[in-house]
Amino acid sequence: MAPPGCTFPSSGADRAQLAMVLEVLASPKPGNVDRCHDYAETRLEHFIVSALAARSSLDAAEARSAGLGPLIEAAVGATACHAGGNTHFGAFILLVPLVYGGTLEGALSAIRSTTVEDAVAFYRAFALTQVRVAPADELDVNDPAATDALRARGMTLLDVMAHSAPRDMVAREWTNGFALCRRTADMLVADAEPRTAIRRAFLALLATEPDTFIAKKHGSALAIKTCERAAAVVRGDASLESLDAWCIGRGVNPGSLADITIGAIYLALGRGWAWDS
Amino acid sequence: MAPPGCTFPSSGADRAQLAMVLEVLASPKPGNVDRCHDYAETRLEHFIVSALAARSSLDAAEARSAGLGPLIEAAVGATACHAGGNTHFGAFILLVPLVYGGTLEGALSAIRSTTVEDAVAFYRAFALTQVRVAPADELDVNDPAATDALRARGMTLLDVMAHSAPRDMVAREWTNGFALCRRTADMLVADAEPRTAIRRAFLALLATEPDTFIAKKHGSALAIKTCERAAAVVRGDASLESLDAWCIGRGVNPGSLADITIGAIYLALGRGWAWDS
Repeated sequence: MAPPGCTFPSSGADRAQLAMVLEVLASPKPGNVDRCHDYAETRLEHFIVSALAARSSLDAAEARSAGLGPLIEAAVGATACHAGGNTHFGAFILLVPLVYGGTLEGALSAIRSTTVEDAVAFYRAFALTQVRVAPADELDVNDPAATDALRARGMTLLDVMAHSAPRDMVAREWTNGFALCRRTADMLVADAEPRTAIRRAFLALLATEPDTFIAKKHGSALAIKTCERAAAVVRGDASLESLDAWCIGRGVNPGSLADITIGAIYLALGRGWAWDS
Repeated sequence: MAPPGCTFPSSGADRAQLAMVLEVLASPKPGNVDRCHDYAETRLEHFIVSALAARSSLDAAEARSAGLGPLIEAAVGATACHAGGNTHFGAFILLVPLVYGGTLEGALSAIRSTTVEDAVAFYRAFALTQVRVAPADELDVNDPAATDALRARGMTLLDVMAHSAPRDMVAREWTNGFALCRRTADMLVADAEPRTAIRRAFLALLATEPDTFIAKKHGSALAIKTCERAAAVVRGDASLESLDAWCIGRGVNPGSLADITIGAIYLALGRGWAWDS
């Protein structure tokens, strides 16, 4: 057997795993888990192990061995192998169609083809983790009756994402052609210093895009306040360290922007982005 | 497709990847790359990406699709996908037979069955990386004539390891039934605090086992001096931080003990060690 040489990443599953680990290893990322910061329950190890554990479900996505809903459910189930709680749920919402589709067009085609059963499987995935949802949503994922409502309304998984899009920037990517992921991938590819490009792209996102995970947890006012504080760092009017301390002190973790960043790294790698140069 | 649930790690390849990432993420580890320390050329990302990139060669080892020499060569080749130089060469010397063998007995049986062609493939693996070897070794891995010498002497890969054992603690594991890896696995399993057990096991090794990578690079006196300094930390007579600074200041990185630690984590995981509890 000849040594395969430098073939990593070569598949979509490879690029998805690489995107997951590069995102979490980028430091400093205000408010989120990175090399210099753990949360009490969720540590850096959990994110790295989650990326490892996702392998078989990412391979299944690449082989198109099931629909998007069951594939996301499988990925969430496979990565519930650690004690760190939810690590990559939002990332899988982006990565699974991208890996499945092969191309952006393929991903969008797969998204348009989702069914009610995909939506039902997706709701089952929530039961495997503790993902925060907007209060009083009539399609509350924690409500067993929601599945009946999905079926009664004939809602596909794309319909579910469209329903969530106003309050969830990850779901929104399904409805706008992965617009924010693509724009962030452009930032990565254009950055002259790839080794530190991810943290710059993340900060740029934080300064302009109110994180919907923060908004669900703390209200939209704090999400917007976080943007303003990040914008001050970008302008040079405040330090990254002070922003990080401010976020951590308030439990402000921009989890949805981390998911968007993973999607962006995936797309950039697909365009040949040389992360290690 | 039902969610597979908490099945990671379930295979030998899973446990090998998990061992590689848990080892490098353990912090602080005096002198080595960890969460808090990179080398200029080799960074934490390189070790994590190396663990990801090794997947197909670890799967090949588990499927016994080639001999140990070509399998190690494939793993080294597959992980030469980053700009960080050698990351897991020594680890593969331990992991490949362990994954191939399934059990310790199986690994030792595979080791006893290695051939001259395994040795030749192993020497080719050196050409893929820049692993430090003892000067003036008559079987210099950087010398193309060494392969002829292997064939002329009929040396198997086990013979090569036995030849290297006095000066290389990783090769030594092939000749002593993975004694140091097993003893270190015992430490991990016995530790009441799994989340920080790896760094304690690493320090205990550092305090008692002169690292042969340090000895090759700096001479055995400095390897022994490193043990003495680590023993002072274990006794409480010096701080871990001062040991780390001392190591980094002198370019002392205990790379072989990191490999031993990876082998130990692999064995502990095979015994059901609950790393995340």
